Amino acid sequence: MYVAKCKQGESFSEGKIIPYGDISISPCSGILKYGQGLFEGLKAHRTEDGRITLFRPDQNALRMQTGADRLCMIPPSVEQFVEAVKQTVPPPGEGALYIRPLLIGSGAVLGMASAPEYTFLIYVSPVGNYHKASSGLNLKVDHKYRRAHTGGAGGVKSCTNYSPVLKSLLEAKSLGFSDVLFLDAATGRNIEELCTCNIFIVKGNIVSTPPTLGTILPGITRKSISELARDFGYEVQERDVSVEELLEAEEVFCTGTAMVVKAVETVTFHDKKIKYMTGEGAMSTKLHLMLTNIQMGVVEDTKGWIVEMDGLLK
Amino acid sequence: MYVAKCKQGESFSEGKIIPYGDISISPCSGILKYGQGLFEGLKAHRTEDGRITLFRPDQNALRMQTGADRLCMIPPSVEQFVEAVKQTVPPPGEGALYIRPLLIGSGAVLGMASAPEYTFLIYVSPVGNYHKASSGLNLKVDHKYRRAHTGGAGGVKSCTNYSPVLKSLLEAKSLGFSDVLFLDAATGRNIEELCTCNIFIVKGNIVSTPPTLGTILPGITRKSISELARDFGYEVQERDVSVEELLEAEEVFCTGTAMVVKAVETVTFHDKKIKYMTGEGAMSTKLHLMLTNIQMGVVEDTKGWIVEMDGLLK
Repeated sequence: MYVAKCKQGESFSEGKIIPYGDISISPCSGILKYGQGLFEGLKAHRTEDGRITLFRPDQNALRMQTGADRLCMIPPSVEQFVEAVKQTVPPPGEGALYIRPLLIGSGAVLGMASAPEYTFLIYVSPVGNYHKASSGLNLKVDHKYRRAHTGGAGGVKSCTNYSPVLKSLLEAKSLGFSDVLFLDAATGRNIEELCTCNIFIVKGNIVSTPPTLGTILPGITRKSISELARDFGYEVQERDVSVEELLEAEEVFCTGTAMVVKAVETVTFHDKKIKYMTGEGAMSTKLHLMLTNIQMGVVEDTKGWIVEMDGLLK
Repeated sequence: MYVAKCKQGESFSEGKIIPYGDISISPCSGILKYGQGLFEGLKAHRTEDGRITLFRPDQNALRMQTGADRLCMIPPSVEQFVEAVKQTVPPPGEGALYIRPLLIGSGAVLGMASAPEYTFLIYVSPVGNYHKASSGLNLKVDHKYRRAHTGGAGGVKSCTNYSPVLKSLLEAKSLGFSDVLFLDAATGRNIEELCTCNIFIVKGNIVSTPPTLGTILPGITRKSISELARDFGYEVQERDVSVEELLEAEEVFCTGTAMVVKAVETVTFHDKKIKYMTGEGAMSTKLHLMLTNIQMGVVEDTKGWIVEMDGLLK
């Protein structure tokens, strides 16, 4: 794994690669006490012709910077971030990888303050299929818990957005659902996102997804899929999407780094269970194929999304 | 410091006292990634006649249990919690202490799940004056950030409630304020609490404080002060308190373990700066004296709030 440290008031200098293992941290650190922690997730792909590529790592770097500003932390620069990611990816032949950058307030704080030291760390793990269901997702609309509120930190990839919705996820999984769909905290009338991915609804030629105004994570796959959908001739609208619209949609799908694009098979809202189009003819299938083809080098990347591992660092 | 570990599906057994120092934790742990962390704060007092006492430690233990349930963690039992606290308090003669229990998801998680291992840890530090201002607090009502929402985790002492409001606190401090007063996320019309303490307003014989319905931390000092205020003949109302009422109050004060009771000298709402009664004649002064007298053993504890260190564990 890659580890770099930085004191408050300074900036990150070059980190180093050390064997993966436990890290040593103050019991009084900003992360343990006040939740000063951000993470990222991105994938390294092996292309058809054997090259190793990263998908839009600069976007993850920028999102970490936005998050660091929101939680009063010091982030690495975009260049440092991308170089550090490259250093953690093993040479071709060792399989597909999920890359997990982490930025934590590692310095000890007593009263409420931003930590005096930050640790930027990256570790990697083999990619599994995040949602085990091989067919579409079966979602439950949550009527009790809310993920985020305006004026909160729901729009950054902060650790604080996850433990508060774990109970909702575990309850839904125990009932056989794949994941939970959260409604907005202000009105409870609009859909927001799942625990770990964004959502889109399709009706006719219009693809709609909730706007990223601070309560929804600005997914990099979400952004990429919006662009590809436009390329396919769909009209993509970023706007409030009501539960009523969700229930009347023809197709619903989710996006995230781990799953790429995944069709939603059913949504359960109170006692109502709605079934949506999935499979061969579905737009989600088309978008999933297009994006994975770009990531795997089957289709040419005309958008500059692919960063090739230059191998110089190995 | 005291450290105990517990695997998912088991319960905490006896921990041990080790020298204070960094702890070793997986980069992949539930706390670092998903913010699965709770903390508590309580004080050990030296009474006038030299005994060492704890103030309502069972209440902290119960609050940690509520929080653990909310974040899908395993908590220690009330008895374990209180015994562990006793073990961390040094013998008489070493001064007043702030005791910091911590419960973290220390086991490694890959996808979103509750951690497979939990660490319960307690460390202590000498008590300082949390808010440096020796006179009353100067608060700024925040119009941008919100601390918590209904359906979130604002009602438990989770690390996830702190880093998202750090920016607000630092901005207010840079403008010379002592702390920030947050409004409710749903309407922005009612007051909730500060970054680290609860709030009360006084008008005539009525003392009002926002209700603990999931967005406000159920402070142990808050609860104790409500009871003492009733003993003094005030009517204590737990209900929504609007900004208008705050601006028209005669007296405003805050409660927390570190500060006990502290008068609010001014509240700044947009361009309006309201001044409140503080000093000798203020209710907050009377309540502060009463509670510290109970804690210090000057006044007899008729409520069973004081737990004496029996010394057997030393």
